[in-house]
Amino acid sequence: MVGATEGPAGFQAVRETNLGIVLRTIRTSAPCSRAVVAASTGLTKATVSSLVAELIDRGLVCETGLVNQRRVGRPGMMLTINGSTLVAIGLEVNVDYLALATMDLLEREVLTRHVAFDARAAGPEECALRLRDLLLEATADPLLRDRPLLGVSVAVPALIDVASGTVSNAPNLGWRGFPLKRRLTDLLADTALAGAPVLVDNDANLGAVAEYRGGHLARTLDLVYLTGEVGIGAGVLMNGEPLRGASGFAGEIGHIPLLKDGPRCACGQRGCLEALAGLDSILRRAVPDLVPDGPVRGSVVESLVAETARRAEADDPTALDALTSAGEWLGRAAATLVNLLNPSAIILGGYFVPLSPWLLPPCREAMAAHSFAPDSGNCRIEPSTLGLSAAARGGAMALIDALDTGSLPLPPGSNAA
Amino acid sequence: MVGATEGPAGFQAVRETNLGIVLRTIRTSAPCSRAVVAASTGLTKATVSSLVAELIDRGLVCETGLVNQRRVGRPGMMLTINGSTLVAIGLEVNVDYLALATMDLLEREVLTRHVAFDARAAGPEECALRLRDLLLEATADPLLRDRPLLGVSVAVPALIDVASGTVSNAPNLGWRGFPLKRRLTDLLADTALAGAPVLVDNDANLGAVAEYRGGHLARTLDLVYLTGEVGIGAGVLMNGEPLRGASGFAGEIGHIPLLKDGPRCACGQRGCLEALAGLDSILRRAVPDLVPDGPVRGSVVESLVAETARRAEADDPTALDALTSAGEWLGRAAATLVNLLNPSAIILGGYFVPLSPWLLPPCREAMAAHSFAPDSGNCRIEPSTLGLSAAARGGAMALIDALDTGSLPLPPGSNAA
Repeated sequence: MVGATEGPAGFQAVRETNLGIVLRTIRTSAPCSRAVVAASTGLTKATVSSLVAELIDRGLVCETGLVNQRRVGRPGMMLTINGSTLVAIGLEVNVDYLALATMDLLEREVLTRHVAFDARAAGPEECALRLRDLLLEATADPLLRDRPLLGVSVAVPALIDVASGTVSNAPNLGWRGFPLKRRLTDLLADTALAGAPVLVDNDANLGAVAEYRGGHLARTLDLVYLTGEVGIGAGVLMNGEPLRGASGFAGEIGHIPLLKDGPRCACGQRGCLEALAGLDSILRRAVPDLVPDGPVRGSVVESLVAETARRAEADDPTALDALTSAGEWLGRAAATLVNLLNPSAIILGGYFVPLSPWLLPPCREAMAAHSFAPDSGNCRIEPSTLGLSAAARGGAMALIDALDTGSLPLPPGSNAA
Repeated sequence: MVGATEGPAGFQAVRETNLGIVLRTIRTSAPCSRAVVAASTGLTKATVSSLVAELIDRGLVCETGLVNQRRVGRPGMMLTINGSTLVAIGLEVNVDYLALATMDLLEREVLTRHVAFDARAAGPEECALRLRDLLLEATADPLLRDRPLLGVSVAVPALIDVASGTVSNAPNLGWRGFPLKRRLTDLLADTALAGAPVLVDNDANLGAVAEYRGGHLARTLDLVYLTGEVGIGAGVLMNGEPLRGASGFAGEIGHIPLLKDGPRCACGQRGCLEALAGLDSILRRAVPDLVPDGPVRGSVVESLVAETARRAEADDPTALDALTSAGEWLGRAAATLVNLLNPSAIILGGYFVPLSPWLLPPCREAMAAHSFAPDSGNCRIEPSTLGLSAAARGGAMALIDALDTGSLPLPPGSNAA
């Protein structure tokens, strides 16, 4: 909305919108001069100067000191994004940990946290409290203190109703119908973070965003990110756009039926990918002597994964068999993706990364065998380089995306201290 | 391209482009006045009048005689698309038939043909000759004679390189690397159809177009069309757009691995959907006494399908078992689609339609059981109402789409006789 409306309220709304437009233009074109911003936006130079002054005052934009030498006339001071103020925070809930990633407007990671947490045993209410504490601890850190907050994103391995921020069904957490967005917003209401926008999304979808924006295969237009946890989810980008389906429930690869009358899955069915190649299944078969009764959750997961890798390294046949079998099932699921979606890349995330030396060879073999297109339609399958914080990072990036597209407002309190 | 360029060649190109723009505007807004066309396109009224006169001369647009009574001033003669001249022809090659569908610019079916043909036994060269003959016979029909041709589309159950119009791999036809577009273009070169644009695409993709444009679930944004032939392909529309993948090879649902060490498929693998629920597999199990040795192809397919339906109607246990088993595998494949893509509708086409009374109950049960989202994410699965000509019709519609989007030119010889 470039232009004027009537009345002071209308004027302020137009000014806020134009501030966002100018900020996005600078994000895209930085370093750039005020004249370039004016030319790109169609706003007058005087308006741009006034808006830029406010963005500098708010600490969102700064002058680089560089001048544009390529043009004739008076050299202009160049503008760029100020990475030292506004931050976006991505949180992730998983079966054995909570993660937090903070990014500035230049998409640099400012601060991360990874804490062991048993979200299944704790339940959703306790988990929401823990997320609030994690947020308050992080924003009290000297790295974040006094920096305005764009918003908070929460990644959950679950079917999510994104519009309401409700966790519809998270079988591996044992959560159903929990209004996480509303609850976390309420819990923040009497803190310094009151009013911060909260978004809730599926962990695989946000992992795919992180890979597309900052992974080693960044900007691959047709990309699938597979979470490698107790649950297995797929975040799908087709032509650079998230594939969400009619109700936002796409990407539930963990529950595609691969083996008739196969092992029981947490969802209640038999022979789902998750029951054949999810972490619970791998650990149960790879290190049977160490796995506790009941679902494998909480901090024990990380140490069991490390032990599985250690035994595989030492050629322990039980561990190798388990990983070979899981890799083969993963390869059949990957071939299903290749046949249905023809992506350019499938990226294995989470705990699949440390186990990839043993998972990938049988996985690649099965994928090639069951892909109809030659050379699997040129699809590569590789481990992620983003570690266990991919979904949290992707959430922070999604918030910055939302600022860029204007679907998230500039935070009111973003004046620099 | 609305505007002027230099020189007579540039002028003619601009005029051709503007003719297309005006034609598309009238297609979208008909009935509409010249004034509305001018307002929508930004062209002057004088230019619009001249272009409309040419479109009327070419027989593409006509005056309806209606006047716009809602506006003050001199009433304008209303314009609409002339459905009586230009036609688009869609052809389909399948394992047991060739189909032809002809549509006018109002998307009315003008003429259809369905002939039994064994494309596997004939081979691609012989098939291209037969397609040429079919085209020449059809365009000699009084319904089509003297009507200008927008283009020819050919649907093939195969991996297609759409850019070059090459059939990369059609295992059920036994074709590989056949340059169908080039061959058919060459064969038409010394006929009245010389120079007609030829497009080649996958049959499932074109079936999905036909369903989206003219099926009983038309305009369903997230839709999957399944071909029900010896091969099973999926045409996927997500948010109304075809999902083609990185190399155009998406939708090969016939080869997703559903049963480890299952029956051998034509692609060379074991346990593919096609080997469990394709027509060859169904007929072999349903009417074992009637199935010949070797692949079931050619005109016998249609009669065996009819006999299978007859026996199932008569509660023959062998036929019922075969259909129940195939239906269940189809349901597992449908659940895979639901879990990965979350569509609103899956439409069973081809020979699945006459067999749907027996296929659908076990299919729906398995789909519901293996879909992770509740109520299969609200996905319905239903038989097509378009019969065996869906892909041919979709091809004709795709040509009209291409005219609408300007990627196909107005045919030079479209002056009305």
